[in-house]
Amino acid sequence: MAGGDGIRVGVFGSGGKVGQAIVDAVEAADDLSFTVGVDKDDDRSSLVDSGTQVVVDFTHPSVVMDNLEFLIGNGIHAVVGTTGFDDDRLAQVRGWLDDAPGVGVLIAPNFAIGAVLSMRFAAAAARFYDSVEVIELHHPHKADAPSGTAYRTARLIAEARADAGAAPMPDATSTALDGARGADVDGVRVHSVRLAGLVAHQEVLLGTEGETLTIRHDSLDRTSFAPGVLLGVRQIGNRPGLTVGLDDLLDL
Amino acid sequence: MAGGDGIRVGVFGSGGKVGQAIVDAVEAADDLSFTVGVDKDDDRSSLVDSGTQVVVDFTHPSVVMDNLEFLIGNGIHAVVGTTGFDDDRLAQVRGWLDDAPGVGVLIAPNFAIGAVLSMRFAAAAARFYDSVEVIELHHPHKADAPSGTAYRTARLIAEARADAGAAPMPDATSTALDGARGADVDGVRVHSVRLAGLVAHQEVLLGTEGETLTIRHDSLDRTSFAPGVLLGVRQIGNRPGLTVGLDDLLDL
Amino acid sequence: MAGGDGIRVGVFGSGGKVGQAIVDAVEAADDLSFTVGVDKDDDRSSLVDSGTQVVVDFTHPSVVMDNLEFLIGNGIHAVVGTTGFDDDRLAQVRGWLDDAPGVGVLIAPNFAIGAVLSMRFAAAAARFYDSVEVIELHHPHKADAPSGTAYRTARLIAEARADAGAAPMPDATSTALDGARGADVDGVRVHSVRLAGLVAHQEVLLGTEGETLTIRHDSLDRTSFAPGVLLGVRQIGNRPGLTVGLDDLLDL
Amino acid sequence: MAGGDGIRVGVFGSGGKVGQAIVDAVEAADDLSFTVGVDKDDDRSSLVDSGTQVVVDFTHPSVVMDNLEFLIGNGIHAVVGTTGFDDDRLAQVRGWLDDAPGVGVLIAPNFAIGAVLSMRFAAAAARFYDSVEVIELHHPHKADAPSGTAYRTARLIAEARADAGAAPMPDATSTALDGARGADVDGVRVHSVRLAGLVAHQEVLLGTEGETLTIRHDSLDRTSFAPGVLLGVRQIGNRPGLTVGLDDLLDL
Repeated sequence: MAGGDGIRVGVFGSGGKVGQAIVDAVEAADDLSFTVGVDKDDDRSSLVDSGTQVVVDFTHPSVVMDNLEFLIGNGIHAVVGTTGFDDDRLAQVRGWLDDAPGVGVLIAPNFAIGAVLSMRFAAAAARFYDSVEVIELHHPHKADAPSGTAYRTARLIAEARADAGAAPMPDATSTALDGARGADVDGVRVHSVRLAGLVAHQEVLLGTEGETLTIRHDSLDRTSFAPGVLLGVRQIGNRPGLTVGLDDLLDL
Repeated sequence: MAGGDGIRVGVFGSGGKVGQAIVDAVEAADDLSFTVGVDKDDDRSSLVDSGTQVVVDFTHPSVVMDNLEFLIGNGIHAVVGTTGFDDDRLAQVRGWLDDAPGVGVLIAPNFAIGAVLSMRFAAAAARFYDSVEVIELHHPHKADAPSGTAYRTARLIAEARADAGAAPMPDATSTALDGARGADVDGVRVHSVRLAGLVAHQEVLLGTEGETLTIRHDSLDRTSFAPGVLLGVRQIGNRPGLTVGLDDLLDL
Repeated sequence: MAGGDGIRVGVFGSGGKVGQAIVDAVEAADDLSFTVGVDKDDDRSSLVDSGTQVVVDFTHPSVVMDNLEFLIGNGIHAVVGTTGFDDDRLAQVRGWLDDAPGVGVLIAPNFAIGAVLSMRFAAAAARFYDSVEVIELHHPHKADAPSGTAYRTARLIAEARADAGAAPMPDATSTALDGARGADVDGVRVHSVRLAGLVAHQEVLLGTEGETLTIRHDSLDRTSFAPGVLLGVRQIGNRPGLTVGLDDLLDL
Repeated sequence: MAGGDGIRVGVFGSGGKVGQAIVDAVEAADDLSFTVGVDKDDDRSSLVDSGTQVVVDFTHPSVVMDNLEFLIGNGIHAVVGTTGFDDDRLAQVRGWLDDAPGVGVLIAPNFAIGAVLSMRFAAAAARFYDSVEVIELHHPHKADAPSGTAYRTARLIAEARADAGAAPMPDATSTALDGARGADVDGVRVHSVRLAGLVAHQEVLLGTEGETLTIRHDSLDRTSFAPGVLLGVRQIGNRPGLTVGLDDLLDL
């Protein structure tokens, strides 16, 4: 437990690309101290022995529950980007946390701060505008259209407008080529561009008489999750229990 | 006085361009009903006689105080875009309102909802990013650079970063042409573009490792104040006392 | 014939909105001199009597042919934005011009220089990029999607790529909501955004490994045809015969 | 030496990052065949023995002249991204090429096709617009402001406008913070944004009454030179003598 400055951080899956990027980010931060990385066949007890306070887990749905049970049982906080959490899994994690009152776990589907802020701002602004549409732009190797983030963004916008009793958006289109007006997600049009050279980008356009507001998020490389992970690492020690999504930590 | 649907709205300065645009906007709104326009030499008592509930004032600093005293004295709410309100004037308005407990007055320097939202979002996001810069773009007839809105936006960003204890922005520039890096407003760089064909536009760019967030506001014509004015008209009846700035009404 | 500096310019349909905007633009130009405007019931001989050298015609398909016969017969050049020219009409105009060797007529479907340049640049660049998509954004009162300009742009891009033997664009989309990927115009995806507050905007996105090129055109008000009309007025005197489209005058 | 499909391509400096990226790009192209990579201490004769037709050189000013003499002497074409070519060096290369009539050498300071196209399009469009400004946006580790590309772009724009006798740009700015209006490069304003998360981006904005045209180039990663290099490799065999700059190959 001796020595080391700042919060002591370990990483599950440190042998993978994402895990390595997180190790690098932790090591580059003045207020964090990297303790130990644990890979598939490594002994997890090194996390306990090294006095690790927070562990980051970007691993696999097949192992993440076992990892969480171990961490919570040992009083270690967790920041989790691994996918596959349904209601049952979340309930199970909450159950474990009931028996470990000081421990905090953050599980988030998206650690790109800009993506989370974009959604928040779009939803907050949506009720002031007559029209809202979403354009998402990705590299051409992407399999789904629209992106999961664009789909969630559109639903949040639709929800905010329904809550505010907003009128349907104006649209006089009477002659259209098939697909020209995009996909309809709860009344919000979503357009998916696939272009060589792009990474992951999204634009929410809001318009009313004489003015428009555009909220654009660009992910330019795969490390864009790092600042969000560090934000979680810094705060989770003060947030006992389960936190789902980065939103609460942004404190907007 | 009977009849009429929705809030009954009068307009000071209805003979001018802006006043006329407001009359048009009120008449186009289903939940508002235009009562009477009052110009320089018209009798203001028509506002009272017509049962007007809210009056919009986009007139001149030389007459606005007199207008407000009249409205408050007659129990009529006011939405004011006229400029020139300093602390003394605001104190005077508050004094009148103390004697008219049910009356609400909204005074705002900027009724473009998108401009207000942009500033809010930029300030809220600023602490999560290593770098923030502002680009404002206007028609070439504009006399000042940067624009007042860009200047205020930069100061709000600087304030938010100071409050969060943010590190200075990274900038390795060692060789620069004079002016290339823009104006320095409390440590935030602001760039002013002047281009024929443009109206009034602003972009706040925020960047951290691997991702950027851009918040852009475009005013495409002079009517962009209308939606903000209508928002004020709809809410001021439920906000007794003095409200300064559109921010509080946006309820973000 | 006396006096006046620069090219002497008359306007057909000067009583309409567009006609008036053209009169204003001519009067504002140092090298042009406005002679006379002719409306529906006015006598056209004033154009001859005033020594007019070039006449601008933004009128109606039902009168434009008669106007052109008159102008060509009197040795006056014409710049025409009126729609409805099919092959028969163009052949007829060419016939009249055969008998008036010094006279020039310019007929163009689009006088917005930026729209014409956008198309040209997009077509010129298309063969160097793996992917090209078009996003057009308009006010919500527009009836057709995509816009005529976007449709023509996409076809020009497709043609340029076919000529260059370009490979099909990469697109791994396997799961898509209906319409998400836009309309397919000869293999080029076109997305149509309809948003309150917008006027007429278009973006061509081109991408290859590690880089993208974006060509964006914004029409911010209805006067955006004026610079193209003046360009035509200045050049048509030196271009005897029929010129179709603004492209040739841009001399790219 | 028989066999192999397509043009046979070798790479100088294949051990470095850039060299390796070029090897990868060549191997991924159906119509090119990678022969051999040569690093600092390797024997260059393998290039001859392998029947290499074109060699790519992204090495160092201290070795590139020796490399070129070797290649030209052996009848091998060259595509060169190495910097440091002044008039003396170019004259020397021309001298060698005089004795090797079939050999072609391409030397270019910038292989990003989009950067070259941007400059071309901006210069071609500049004379049709009242106002032109340049915004360049880069990561904050960049030492110079504006970027070399932005500086060259502004000069080309200024040159094109001078050739066309364009009027000075309109600008009514009378009160400005120092630097707000950017750097003045031959009368063209250039603004330099430095933002964490960005790579290398440039926007040329052109405006006239009622419309604007924007030409934007984004380099999203370091491999953006690859398509330009391949373009050079494919064409240099048919372009004997010295070609400076990618422009001629784009055949616009």
